[in-house]
Amino acid sequence: MQLVSIKSLFRNLSEYEGKEVTIGGWLRSKRDSKTFGFLVVNDGTFFEPLQVVYSDALVNFADISKLNVGSALVVTGVVTPTPQAKQPFEIQATAIEVEGASTPDYPLQKKRHTLEYLRTMTHLRPRTNTFQAVFRVRSMIAYAIHKFFQERDFVYVHTPLITGSDCEGAGEMFQVTTMDLNNLPKNEDGSIDYRQDFFAKPTNLTVSGQLNGETYAMAFKNIYTFGPTFRAENSNTTRHAAEFWMIEPEMAFADLDDNMILAESMLKYVIRYVLENAPEEMAFFNQFVDKGLLDRLNHVVSSDFGHVTYTDAIKILEKHNDEFEYKVSWGCDLQTEHERYLTEKEFGRPVFVTDYPKEIKAFYMKLNPDGKTVAAMDCLVPGIGEIIGGSQREDDYDKLLCRMKELNLNPEDYEFYLDLRKYGSARHSGYGLGFERCVMYLTGMGNIRDVIPFPRTVKNCDL
Amino acid sequence: MQLVSIKSLFRNLSEYEGKEVTIGGWLRSKRDSKTFGFLVVNDGTFFEPLQVVYSDALVNFADISKLNVGSALVVTGVVTPTPQAKQPFEIQATAIEVEGASTPDYPLQKKRHTLEYLRTMTHLRPRTNTFQAVFRVRSMIAYAIHKFFQERDFVYVHTPLITGSDCEGAGEMFQVTTMDLNNLPKNEDGSIDYRQDFFAKPTNLTVSGQLNGETYAMAFKNIYTFGPTFRAENSNTTRHAAEFWMIEPEMAFADLDDNMILAESMLKYVIRYVLENAPEEMAFFNQFVDKGLLDRLNHVVSSDFGHVTYTDAIKILEKHNDEFEYKVSWGCDLQTEHERYLTEKEFGRPVFVTDYPKEIKAFYMKLNPDGKTVAAMDCLVPGIGEIIGGSQREDDYDKLLCRMKELNLNPEDYEFYLDLRKYGSARHSGYGLGFERCVMYLTGMGNIRDVIPFPRTVKNCDL
Repeated sequence: MQLVSIKSLFRNLSEYEGKEVTIGGWLRSKRDSKTFGFLVVNDGTFFEPLQVVYSDALVNFADISKLNVGSALVVTGVVTPTPQAKQPFEIQATAIEVEGASTPDYPLQKKRHTLEYLRTMTHLRPRTNTFQAVFRVRSMIAYAIHKFFQERDFVYVHTPLITGSDCEGAGEMFQVTTMDLNNLPKNEDGSIDYRQDFFAKPTNLTVSGQLNGETYAMAFKNIYTFGPTFRAENSNTTRHAAEFWMIEPEMAFADLDDNMILAESMLKYVIRYVLENAPEEMAFFNQFVDKGLLDRLNHVVSSDFGHVTYTDAIKILEKHNDEFEYKVSWGCDLQTEHERYLTEKEFGRPVFVTDYPKEIKAFYMKLNPDGKTVAAMDCLVPGIGEIIGGSQREDDYDKLLCRMKELNLNPEDYEFYLDLRKYGSARHSGYGLGFERCVMYLTGMGNIRDVIPFPRTVKNCDL
Repeated sequence: MQLVSIKSLFRNLSEYEGKEVTIGGWLRSKRDSKTFGFLVVNDGTFFEPLQVVYSDALVNFADISKLNVGSALVVTGVVTPTPQAKQPFEIQATAIEVEGASTPDYPLQKKRHTLEYLRTMTHLRPRTNTFQAVFRVRSMIAYAIHKFFQERDFVYVHTPLITGSDCEGAGEMFQVTTMDLNNLPKNEDGSIDYRQDFFAKPTNLTVSGQLNGETYAMAFKNIYTFGPTFRAENSNTTRHAAEFWMIEPEMAFADLDDNMILAESMLKYVIRYVLENAPEEMAFFNQFVDKGLLDRLNHVVSSDFGHVTYTDAIKILEKHNDEFEYKVSWGCDLQTEHERYLTEKEFGRPVFVTDYPKEIKAFYMKLNPDGKTVAAMDCLVPGIGEIIGGSQREDDYDKLLCRMKELNLNPEDYEFYLDLRKYGSARHSGYGLGFERCVMYLTGMGNIRDVIPFPRTVKNCDL
């Protein structure tokens, strides 16, 4: 079918003025009188809907007037500018075909629905204004991230989802198996015989592609991953999902400063891309979801990110311990309230906190000369707290081995990882960006369930 | 660190001629005499390696001469054109720092290794020529696919990985659980109490994002997915992996013809992108992996794909039944040998086979007016066979329900899917492209294990 998209009509109006076009879309609302009527139609390509005017000159005028909201229509008509009206143009219909009718009980009538209510209909909510905006912007953010890294010659690496190892010991994992749970194969001693499982050993869903990514950085210099990641944490919050997407760049011959430069450039690039390519959606978020969003993002794009060491950050925070639920002192992990204090009140812009105590960070982070802290960095942003966590990696074979032993990790499980420090080790750094947190940050949406098409959370695996 | 990439030197040579630059990379090979020597260095940004000349003017000349292959180096020197030599320029070193040494037993010495041998060292093989080429091209293909769809305003949808449903009944699935297999919670009747599992029901890894994708196409008109997919098939072939990536576009207001136009444009776009952006890698594949590859791909880009109905294809194939291991007759599924015959011998180019018997295709495909065939299409390409499978979807509520009942599917499990036919149904179509098959097709690589960074196959889940 030769259809014109509604986006194309809005963006290239002068090209279509006075011409007859055909569009396909869904009826959002309808007003009619005895001899004519107005249809508001959306085809999913553009945030603003299209106004269609029809009259009793149409053979099926009576049928059109009875249409239910949600109906799929193929509308042919003339593009007519409407300089006096709210919308810049309308279509004066010469033919309207009903592609698929709807019913009077269509759940998305023209009234406002709560996000909670819409969560109960994952398959229909993308037809609403809010979710049209969220998921179009989500798609753009994903593309902007690819574009950013590809323009800089980073190699996109698909790290594995099913894994035999627990990268960071990062908490609860989902087990993957093909064994019949009603009839598990057993060894003579009664333990489970994993040799009978698909991979002939226990396997889990990945919690991070980082260690795999490092092996590729030591071959391609600059790489990034962008794929799903899993946490089987029993936390029912607005910020946690069991399945989410993560971006993990890794650079060889790069230290912590290079890492922070990359992270800051990436965030600015992505924000700029979305502001330029989704102005209608961003204006909607700014007006209805998070007032002040546009000011905040524009401010981020034009300001340098702050930098503070963990040690200095603790000194700042300690002065305000009376304002915090969790009091801070050197050695403790930062909670969201502390992170937000730093980025919102102290700096008023995104800030990198660096050089955390080694005890609260992962084994693979590079030990600083002080012997107490590691070359880690977290990027905190207003409204969210931590959005990026990264580090320079320990590239010294002996120091890494020593740290693994301190933490009771079995070096045999990490032989491949130690090899990278044996055969041409190089300073290298990388970070992880939680994709959904990034979408929340750019849209102002407050619940992770509302930025994932089909969210997976505790006790919830719908569709 | 301010490093120049080797790619940048090769692509913008005139800019660097006579200037001093610093690069970081790994030693591939070395030749030396008493007073000077040559290093071949690769930094993973470009297929061609860099030649470095050094002399005993360097303070650490003796150390450099003792370097093992695989060492990580930071080389500073002057970019000097070498019009007489094989390589267009070399670096005359003014300083060479050893960033990380290597050992004499480094597994990747300068001799040729078999692909089988390299499969035993997943973490080091990306440092070899073949895998540098494969994984750089893989990354480019992924990006070209995103670029193609985004330029056409398709919305990228992340369909879920963990799912409570079996989309196509497409065979063996991996089960996902957080229950303790040594101590499974049981109901009173001895069955497993899935209410205790993370999602409070049995869950699997997805075999296709299509049904979820359709819900988004009915909101955004044009969408695509690009994500991991899983098959727990016990097939140890060169073409099957347990974990692979799939691209699934879906278009509303689009029929089977629109679907084939999209598939053909996409394949041509991706081939063109790779030919333009990876000429060195493609020349390498053409010379060492698959002679004739470039001719074949250039031919595909410049020719129209063929079209044949299943019924006509069977007539063609029946004439050659004596050449086939599996004889064909109307109603049977096509094997790879038949697919390859059609695309390689009969058409000599990619071909779409359409309108398959409904019995050998999925329940959701649109029934043709003949009542026997469905509006399906498979795209077959030389050297591979099927690379794309798609269809127009059944958009009629009653026909879909009827087909589901014929196949003993429980309509309650598909309520969301039936809703799409109840509230503004529209003709719609889509297809699936196996990403790894696409990479094999474009590189000429013969084993799927060699185009996946960390392949997962039966009894193999390494790293």
